[in-house]
Amino acid sequence: MKVGQTHYRSIWTDEVRRSVCIVDQTCLPHAFATLRLESRDAVAHAIRTMQVRGAPLIGVAAAYGLALAMDADSSNAALEESASLLNATRPTAVNLAWALKRMTSHLRNLPHQSRASAAWALAHKMADEDVATNAAIGEYGATLIRSIHEAKHDTVNILTHCNAGWVATVDWGTALAAVYKAHDSGVPVHVWVDETRPRNQGLLTAWELRQHGVPHTYIVDNAGGHLMQHGQVDVVMVGADRVSMHGDVANKIGTYLKALAAQDNDVPFYAALPISTIDFSLDDALEEIEIEERPADEVRLIGGKDLKDKPKHQRAPQAENGLETASTLDIARLRLLDDRSPAANPAFDVTPARLITGIITERGIMKPHEIAALEHAT
Amino acid sequence: MKVGQTHYRSIWTDEVRRSVCIVDQTCLPHAFATLRLESRDAVAHAIRTMQVRGAPLIGVAAAYGLALAMDADSSNAALEESASLLNATRPTAVNLAWALKRMTSHLRNLPHQSRASAAWALAHKMADEDVATNAAIGEYGATLIRSIHEAKHDTVNILTHCNAGWVATVDWGTALAAVYKAHDSGVPVHVWVDETRPRNQGLLTAWELRQHGVPHTYIVDNAGGHLMQHGQVDVVMVGADRVSMHGDVANKIGTYLKALAAQDNDVPFYAALPISTIDFSLDDALEEIEIEERPADEVRLIGGKDLKDKPKHQRAPQAENGLETASTLDIARLRLLDDRSPAANPAFDVTPARLITGIITERGIMKPHEIAALEHAT
Repeated sequence: MKVGQTHYRSIWTDEVRRSVCIVDQTCLPHAFATLRLESRDAVAHAIRTMQVRGAPLIGVAAAYGLALAMDADSSNAALEESASLLNATRPTAVNLAWALKRMTSHLRNLPHQSRASAAWALAHKMADEDVATNAAIGEYGATLIRSIHEAKHDTVNILTHCNAGWVATVDWGTALAAVYKAHDSGVPVHVWVDETRPRNQGLLTAWELRQHGVPHTYIVDNAGGHLMQHGQVDVVMVGADRVSMHGDVANKIGTYLKALAAQDNDVPFYAALPISTIDFSLDDALEEIEIEERPADEVRLIGGKDLKDKPKHQRAPQAENGLETASTLDIARLRLLDDRSPAANPAFDVTPARLITGIITERGIMKPHEIAALEHAT
Repeated sequence: MKVGQTHYRSIWTDEVRRSVCIVDQTCLPHAFATLRLESRDAVAHAIRTMQVRGAPLIGVAAAYGLALAMDADSSNAALEESASLLNATRPTAVNLAWALKRMTSHLRNLPHQSRASAAWALAHKMADEDVATNAAIGEYGATLIRSIHEAKHDTVNILTHCNAGWVATVDWGTALAAVYKAHDSGVPVHVWVDETRPRNQGLLTAWELRQHGVPHTYIVDNAGGHLMQHGQVDVVMVGADRVSMHGDVANKIGTYLKALAAQDNDVPFYAALPISTIDFSLDDALEEIEIEERPADEVRLIGGKDLKDKPKHQRAPQAENGLETASTLDIARLRLLDDRSPAANPAFDVTPARLITGIITERGIMKPHEIAALEHAT
């Protein structure tokens, strides 16, 4: 991903200070700020408060969190306790559990004194693998977009929900990787960006697409069905947080509604995800997946960029890279809903496999019922 | 409707000053403010900027706008020009055209000197009729809610989209009239209130329900499908802006998505509306209804109540009735989306009759295909 003229990943490390750096996604898109995380607890806090978010990225972040934990204490007790603490930060995405399991399985068999360096090495490896995996997902997804273009001879309109882009992964994204690869290879694309209340991850998507120069239009979550009824969407592409063995897809709340509209209007619907997002032990997604209920104030209050120009001394200071750091100075919050009205905030829903045209992974595109065969592919 | 201890309608008149008073809905729910409109152009502005909104209410408001126009100039030219100007304020709701047609048909045949008083009299009559119509819609709708309660022996969970309540009408509301009547008659109800981006009319609904003491929970527009998948919605009830002769329902953008989810989960879906909302000349709703495209800044910017407590001298002054008037002092706006990203803002969508269980009117509840028989009912 390129921000201004600088190439970034969403997560990187500082070898000298043994710390993890992230793009603070609670400031995006109003400001680009980076955060340095120097402890396991700082990583846990970053995942919980969604300073890092996106199923693939929180897996890698948790791996680094465990490496930081091993720096502090590499005992068996610390390993198990830290893995358990990190695993509890978000309940729905399976990549988190997958990454921690991979880390602990590897570290458990090593002598204490080599665990810390092994943990850093494996976390690095997982970060690099994520980039390669997403690049492969993007290539497969781009072939799909290209084939729509070849049939249509016109711009391909892709609707996406939430953010399945750069900042949901270490780099490239999942659903948006397909868009970037198609765009880069010359296919004319236009993206309908769902706002994705309550946290408005569509703002991240619009910000990424703007950085990359991809034509797009931002819409509220209510608008997608209407656009599909009027032939303005050629394909829906989303990411995923957890996928059952049968191809049912848990993703950001509201995905299910778009899948219903896609089916009702014969618009193909694809989920793009690394195989690590598939929970091969999961039979009945609707019954078995714990859907995270997030705080009501995410619905009641809203953040945005203050419209008033501030005097210079009140503005955010500039970091070394010329980008704002203490960007919260420019971000204000308003109350939408009175405290006396209750609000519910389920964060994910499940789209049944019957509504899904195909699943795009790093091993190719397949029908939902075919993904069980991937269990031993990684 | 009761605000605090005072009974209000959403629109009323001041006979002495020949003016129209409204509740300014752009301030709700953050402040309850009333506005006095003293000219046709002030009424047109109020409709256009959604200070008054809701299909039934804008019909009555337009009728009063024409009465104000007749006070100023009761010539034929003024009558036609004013009707045409008021009709162009919002394109989708048919009540607006219906009310203006009724007014002009009546006034055209009268001598100029009696037009003004006749216009006021007919507008008053239409306001009173709206109240009676909505009360009847509410009674029919309440029987439906009551029968669900009798089958379930537990609280009836009703999901609603946008605001089809007090402030969308002169009084009572349409879909919410059913809720109020059921609640008042002792049926335990709970309402899931869709936020309804981009203008968040769900805040009006939550405010009304709170004033009336009806249990409710506010949710983002993305959440309804998930709730239906988990059996947490017994019935969906919405209002309507225009209905075709075949029972296709144009209503606030996003209604269609909820109707799809209702069908997918065997949840009954009802639209509640006065017969004046039915456009008996309309055959193909998807093709023929002009869907209003509203300004992109409704999506890009957002208003809410400033979280910071202000010094007393900066707060809104109190009106005679003890309620805030110049309430905009407490309402701030933030930028969500950068100006460099385009945004689309279609305001309505069409829910096909095949997804609708029934239509609730002042003449009873019927299947969508049965409404054509109502053409000569009024």
